[in-house]
Amino acid sequence: MAKKVVIVGGVAGGATAAVRARRLDENAEIVLIERGQDVSFANCGLPYHIGGEIEDRAELLLQTPARLKARFSLDVRIRSAVTRIDRGARRVHVRDLAHHREYTEDYDALVLAPGAAPIVPPLPGIDHPAISTLRNMTDMDRIKELVERGAQAAIVVGGGFIGLEMAENLRRRGLTVALVEMLPQVMPPLDPEIAARLQRELTTHEIALHLADAVTGFEDQGGRVRARLKSGAVLDADLVVLAVGVRPESTLAREAGLTLSERGAIVVDEHMRTSDPHIYAVGDAVQVRDPVLGGETLIPLAGPANRQARIAIDNIFGRPTRYRGTFGTSVVRVFRVTAASTGLAEKNLRQRGIAYKKIYVHRSQHAGYFPGAHPMTIKLLFTPTDGKILGAQIVGVAGVDKRIDVLATAQQAGLTVTDLEDLELAYAPQYGSAKDPVNVAGYVATNALRGDEDFIDPAELDDDARPNWTILDVREPREYEAGHIPGAVLIPLGQLRARWEEIPNDKPLVVYCAVGQRAYYATRILRAKGLHPRNLAGGFTMYSLCHAQPPVPGTCG
Amino acid sequence: MAKKVVIVGGVAGGATAAVRARRLDENAEIVLIERGQDVSFANCGLPYHIGGEIEDRAELLLQTPARLKARFSLDVRIRSAVTRIDRGARRVHVRDLAHHREYTEDYDALVLAPGAAPIVPPLPGIDHPAISTLRNMTDMDRIKELVERGAQAAIVVGGGFIGLEMAENLRRRGLTVALVEMLPQVMPPLDPEIAARLQRELTTHEIALHLADAVTGFEDQGGRVRARLKSGAVLDADLVVLAVGVRPESTLAREAGLTLSERGAIVVDEHMRTSDPHIYAVGDAVQVRDPVLGGETLIPLAGPANRQARIAIDNIFGRPTRYRGTFGTSVVRVFRVTAASTGLAEKNLRQRGIAYKKIYVHRSQHAGYFPGAHPMTIKLLFTPTDGKILGAQIVGVAGVDKRIDVLATAQQAGLTVTDLEDLELAYAPQYGSAKDPVNVAGYVATNALRGDEDFIDPAELDDDARPNWTILDVREPREYEAGHIPGAVLIPLGQLRARWEEIPNDKPLVVYCAVGQRAYYATRILRAKGLHPRNLAGGFTMYSLCHAQPPVPGTCG
Repeated sequence: MAKKVVIVGGVAGGATAAVRARRLDENAEIVLIERGQDVSFANCGLPYHIGGEIEDRAELLLQTPARLKARFSLDVRIRSAVTRIDRGARRVHVRDLAHHREYTEDYDALVLAPGAAPIVPPLPGIDHPAISTLRNMTDMDRIKELVERGAQAAIVVGGGFIGLEMAENLRRRGLTVALVEMLPQVMPPLDPEIAARLQRELTTHEIALHLADAVTGFEDQGGRVRARLKSGAVLDADLVVLAVGVRPESTLAREAGLTLSERGAIVVDEHMRTSDPHIYAVGDAVQVRDPVLGGETLIPLAGPANRQARIAIDNIFGRPTRYRGTFGTSVVRVFRVTAASTGLAEKNLRQRGIAYKKIYVHRSQHAGYFPGAHPMTIKLLFTPTDGKILGAQIVGVAGVDKRIDVLATAQQAGLTVTDLEDLELAYAPQYGSAKDPVNVAGYVATNALRGDEDFIDPAELDDDARPNWTILDVREPREYEAGHIPGAVLIPLGQLRARWEEIPNDKPLVVYCAVGQRAYYATRILRAKGLHPRNLAGGFTMYSLCHAQPPVPGTCG
Repeated sequence: MAKKVVIVGGVAGGATAAVRARRLDENAEIVLIERGQDVSFANCGLPYHIGGEIEDRAELLLQTPARLKARFSLDVRIRSAVTRIDRGARRVHVRDLAHHREYTEDYDALVLAPGAAPIVPPLPGIDHPAISTLRNMTDMDRIKELVERGAQAAIVVGGGFIGLEMAENLRRRGLTVALVEMLPQVMPPLDPEIAARLQRELTTHEIALHLADAVTGFEDQGGRVRARLKSGAVLDADLVVLAVGVRPESTLAREAGLTLSERGAIVVDEHMRTSDPHIYAVGDAVQVRDPVLGGETLIPLAGPANRQARIAIDNIFGRPTRYRGTFGTSVVRVFRVTAASTGLAEKNLRQRGIAYKKIYVHRSQHAGYFPGAHPMTIKLLFTPTDGKILGAQIVGVAGVDKRIDVLATAQQAGLTVTDLEDLELAYAPQYGSAKDPVNVAGYVATNALRGDEDFIDPAELDDDARPNWTILDVREPREYEAGHIPGAVLIPLGQLRARWEEIPNDKPLVVYCAVGQRAYYATRILRAKGLHPRNLAGGFTMYSLCHAQPPVPGTCG
């Protein structure tokens, strides 16, 4: 007998699941139930239609119910809400929101793809009509309309993906934009010194940053909104976008008695099966395995949602594939700058007491002699014993997405930093270097692993600590004059062999240059003289990023 | 006692070796001997200075002897040729070309980095002053001067990396350009149907292609050059660039009695050591291991040369690192199009009788709803039993270099096509898709591996074979009208469930769409009806590329 699959939620994971089910079984009955107006819309594109970069709204509708019906013989029901799961009878209760009627639908297998809902903090004045979250096309239309009716000023609350994308796009539309973020940095998946580069870019584009601050309440001011912040600041705006995070939409699952995590996510096994063997769940509502350290986590991303949907359907149709967990590989563009990460951040490792080593490299995305070279910063975190990749973060103007995908692939394949030395990548002057930035990261990390280089974290050179060190700058005089670490002694690398005896020897020695490479050469020279210099990780570039922002105790660098 | 290392050749591998040696040993005596005028110049950039994209000639000089002396305490001797190696005495004989004197230099370890020399075929008239190869800055200056003195027409002989880059750059300078290539395709590392996309781009930019043809001789025509081709064509030009390939510069090694390969390359072990334990060799002159199939090969590329140099020096200074072989990962830009490859091509596999499967996918480099999406074609070759990656080729306008590096990393890590399904890559609409092209290649290849899809090679549907097949086109009528395979029956995918019984059943059935995805859906529907359709690999797109060019017996598709 033909199998009947009911899928709840028709956006990323749900739509993928439905189409995959049809491919695996031409005779299955497949019902896709979506609460909203649209299925399979491009939610990652919403901010860019508001900003105008995606001009045509219709581009965002990747599928229509009619096309899904014609091509895949799917039974798609929009504006329909599943209100209850009767697990014993394998039946869901559906409310047709357009026609105000209720009915039931039996299933052999049920797939939950409800997603995650934007968190709306219970603040005074939160229900002001100019305050909106951004989850779907309807939200997008509302915000866009406010912009087009002449909004001059906006407040974005939350500095994650959606917050940054909205700040950029509202600014592109000419609004003045204030961004309020509770943490002392934007983009929580990144470490603060990497996020600092994004903060500089936001500031360059006149986004007013209110970091380590929070809205305490909203007031109406004749149709406009006034936000009061914990710091005492007062911001007025014509529209407010709330993007403070999401929570799994697991009410239906909870009411059905399915096992949830402490954070309210649906618990699934590696086949994406919930605690009920006939019910699967995928996407932003489910808890996933952390494949780096083990344990469970919650990472809402579109790529993993699609993958999970495929795996759930495979298992329903008798193909026992497994989901191995989510590494959290992600990328964001903020004006001209791109930031990306994969695996764990340093702050996660510290929090969990995991031993690690880290290095920074600063390299251009392609040969420096070819026009258009821009530096990028790579931060690489790895185990101190065997050099397994724990995580990587990259920020720069170009080539960032490529290197994070190479590092993500390397991490997922279980490579070590020493394997990165050997990676043979494609080189032409437009695209890379004979030693790609990924290779260089491998070289520096392997040096650190073997003890060829002994790094010091830029965070350790704060105002209190600096006097305890002899700090040697091996750059050229014009670089030193343009800015240097307070108290640093200048001996350019080219003069070091002749002048090394000038270095005071009453304190431990740290050497730095712009990015760490000349300092490495210098430490090799000085070690041969019997000294024990440390190399400032990431050089003056990282020192500046690290100490430019309000210091973040225990996390900077 | 301090070790003395003599390095012969100061460009890619030689310069890297010298600098690495200093890092490993501050006290070593390091002598770098270079025959030419410059050390460490950017040879991959030479065509772009002729074309004007790299404006400043000085950008190409990555290091100067003075800087190498000051920073690394290297003894650099330009315009100096090593004429003989006295292995017994561990001594080289050096000719100072500037001062016409000879002397000897002892060594503890000798590193040969002589590179490869452009092949100059012994054709009548080959010594015409307007005919040049392109190996160094002097060659570049000569060609550039001819352009600037008003050259109107150029002939480029050879369609590999340098040939294509020169054709593009001379065209950019406004010259009419004819390209002559012995093979029936450009870019020999690629399979012909992938190279066909480059040929289209060259033709679009008015490069006259003479494929499967050869120059038989040159004549002087009042200072200009007349080339006669095997086909009978006659070409006149103001300058000719010869780029028909390179041969290892192994004369010095051969005269010293070191073991050479049949093709004249220096034989080294995995430590880059030659048959003499005190002599190492790196770069374009050495034979390398083929890490995919085993055996030995010859692949001149800058990245591997650098890596080999590092490994040779490591071993000289007591760090026993190993070179694992060269995968041949490479990329080239031809006007707006980028082509890249890694591992083996289909033609290599056929030649060597290796069993393989292949798939094509056509996807955009990023989300289709974001402006600027361009399709790319990925060809993936893998073992038919366990899905190990044998090779990959990609051609397209954007994002090609990223995907080849991800696939190269996957191949080098030993991943299978099924692992590509699972790869978690960074997605934002500017950079990728929730299902990245690499994931999609993994899906399609895994389908082929499991027998979910049964592909037919576009090359099999030639004029002779087509009448033996029922050919079903499942695209929309407007696509069919714009062009279709002769004799194809049209039933759009959306009507297939209702109309499948119209399909003639007297011959085997092949189904196609634009790129293969709708045809896959169609084959799933038809299989459920009891039919046994095959999916045309790469769809109408690949069929058109494959059959647009002069057919290449036994290799097309």
